[in-house]
Amino acid sequence: MKSIQTPRDLAINGASPAFEEPLHVGRPNIGSRENFLELAGQILDQHWLSNNGPMVRKFEQRVADYHDVRHCVAMCNGTVALEIAIRALGLEGEVIIPSYTFIATAHALSWQAITPVFADIDITTHTLDPAAVRRMITPRTTGIIGVRLWGRSIPVEELQSIADEHDIPLMFDSAHAFGCSYKGKMIGNFGACEVLSFHATKFFNTFEGGAVLTNDDKLAETMRLMRNFGFSGLDNVIHPGTNGKMTEIAAAMGLVNLDSIDEMVEANRLNYMTYRDELDALPGIRLLSYDGSERNNYQYIVIEISNECTASRDHIIKGLHAENVLARRYFWPGCHNMTPYKELYPHSGLVLPNTQQVADRVILLPTGTTINKDIIQTITSAIRALTAGAQ
Amino acid sequence: MKSIQTPRDLAINGASPAFEEPLHVGRPNIGSRENFLELAGQILDQHWLSNNGPMVRKFEQRVADYHDVRHCVAMCNGTVALEIAIRALGLEGEVIIPSYTFIATAHALSWQAITPVFADIDITTHTLDPAAVRRMITPRTTGIIGVRLWGRSIPVEELQSIADEHDIPLMFDSAHAFGCSYKGKMIGNFGACEVLSFHATKFFNTFEGGAVLTNDDKLAETMRLMRNFGFSGLDNVIHPGTNGKMTEIAAAMGLVNLDSIDEMVEANRLNYMTYRDELDALPGIRLLSYDGSERNNYQYIVIEISNECTASRDHIIKGLHAENVLARRYFWPGCHNMTPYKELYPHSGLVLPNTQQVADRVILLPTGTTINKDIIQTITSAIRALTAGAQ
Repeated sequence: MKSIQTPRDLAINGASPAFEEPLHVGRPNIGSRENFLELAGQILDQHWLSNNGPMVRKFEQRVADYHDVRHCVAMCNGTVALEIAIRALGLEGEVIIPSYTFIATAHALSWQAITPVFADIDITTHTLDPAAVRRMITPRTTGIIGVRLWGRSIPVEELQSIADEHDIPLMFDSAHAFGCSYKGKMIGNFGACEVLSFHATKFFNTFEGGAVLTNDDKLAETMRLMRNFGFSGLDNVIHPGTNGKMTEIAAAMGLVNLDSIDEMVEANRLNYMTYRDELDALPGIRLLSYDGSERNNYQYIVIEISNECTASRDHIIKGLHAENVLARRYFWPGCHNMTPYKELYPHSGLVLPNTQQVADRVILLPTGTTINKDIIQTITSAIRALTAGAQ
Repeated sequence: MKSIQTPRDLAINGASPAFEEPLHVGRPNIGSRENFLELAGQILDQHWLSNNGPMVRKFEQRVADYHDVRHCVAMCNGTVALEIAIRALGLEGEVIIPSYTFIATAHALSWQAITPVFADIDITTHTLDPAAVRRMITPRTTGIIGVRLWGRSIPVEELQSIADEHDIPLMFDSAHAFGCSYKGKMIGNFGACEVLSFHATKFFNTFEGGAVLTNDDKLAETMRLMRNFGFSGLDNVIHPGTNGKMTEIAAAMGLVNLDSIDEMVEANRLNYMTYRDELDALPGIRLLSYDGSERNNYQYIVIEISNECTASRDHIIKGLHAENVLARRYFWPGCHNMTPYKELYPHSGLVLPNTQQVADRVILLPTGTTINKDIIQTITSAIRALTAGAQ
């Protein structure tokens, strides 16, 4: 790694890149290679590859225990888990979600011919603003999906009050929030249910995967039916459904990664502390903080570039990419500016000013077990030089 | 294995079961254990677990080459592959399908708020009867899905004519037909596209998996977008979509199993020949034949129990289950008798007489690489004794 002291040392100004290989925001964390291959061999020997096998059942139990919740229903990915939870709750017509979220939150609705209605977010927390949710309720609204963005706290009680007043369910897209708590209680215990993602780029992965956590026995049973085509027994289909099954090999990856989860969180936490120390003095750059009184997974390093910063957000990203640091604009430009939603609601930006502002300001930086203090100091020195050298 | 000579030797009559372990209809075929674990190790070392990785791209190329078709778009499972193909073709309103099919054909439509309309089948071939399809066309019909049941031939030209007359697309659910040909041309080359399944119970598996084969460049491109949320590049969502991605580990299983595919087909073929020889003289039992002039995968051993048989279909199944032979009633009682379709169309059985009859007559028997001649002779001797001993 080169040392970056001044703008002259930057790749964007002609120097060689800081890193030979690209640094991804979400490079997969992988637990014990040896243990995974051992479990993979067991699966082949048992000839049980899918369909609620022993690995999946063990994985579900461990994830449920980890979150202190009654049910974990494992799925092939987080998006199909969202689709199944949405259908199991009987949502239809319109459902209120934030626009500042990964596109899957909106797509899981529109895939099933349900209309996502975008409510604005709080400018500081990046999560649904309850007052904005109230403004978007119509007679066709059948539910609210809160998104636990960056795994941070969201106004659960206020959202639940709105849902209760209108007698509609509240569920959570908790794709970012594996292993996090809210007011001392683990996520998975709020609303009707909460949906997890174990995608490769999440700090905890099962290659691809997802799950729904819930304390509602009946809802869990319905979702178990739905992920296996509604089959009850060998022949009898008693419910609409799809194929949402997690494979045994995906569950094996989950079991192995669960064994290393404390180390993964600790690596993320140390990376976060290093970023915090290094970015603290930089004007116009705000690192989103984690609440130390809660359990966090520290998996996202989110910085916001304000107007006080001498460099623009996109200039910083361009400069980092030149160093082979693949910093990302999550979730720019907001779902409401993406197809098919921008065609559906051409003027929705007018009621989403905070979403637009946050989407224009955010940068995600690399973290995870393959990132360390030296790497972070090089990344932050590049950011310092980029902001010092900007017009 | 015990010898079954007379009804007294049957487990249903008090003897011990023929098999200690249950024999499944679709026990997974697995290629080289060593090669799979080698590829699995490579995937972990490369830290590339999903998102159109090198294994998936290699797998797609090999499956496309195998079927002599331009595009193979790999997916997480066959049902999501169906959903994406249906959406990519712009189907809505009503779509005509057989009721005598795995429930996924119907569910893939209803998941997207499209109404499946069931047309009757030919009593001999078990596949869509073109005349019945014509009768079910309405102004709301937007497409036809032909199902290549048991991997056998279906009236492709007649179905294509109906589709062309009404200017609607024809696609195929070819979940059973991996590696099969029709009139000397490999499947995947007919209709707008054809959907494969690589589920664990198929003779060729990727744990869970599916794919769409097509020669239509634009359709393939649309489906590639749709399986990855419609993303074009890192930030830009330009199309509705879902998560239909196949993982690297699933593709690795596919690559390893492709290396052994000739042996798998040959094992199925030999099993089929043995069943044919053993069941030939049994009155009232008809083994569905494969056309020797086509390429077949021989993966389903399908017998039909007619009224001439002294034992009922369900008596034979009960007797086989007692021997630990888990024979199955595919796809009894027909999709139109399953939820939610029986509630939608309470009288649809009236226009589906052939479906009802076939669904009442079919039994599937075990085959695959873990089944051999001795096992089959024991299964068929049980069937002989069961039919001899029945009232």
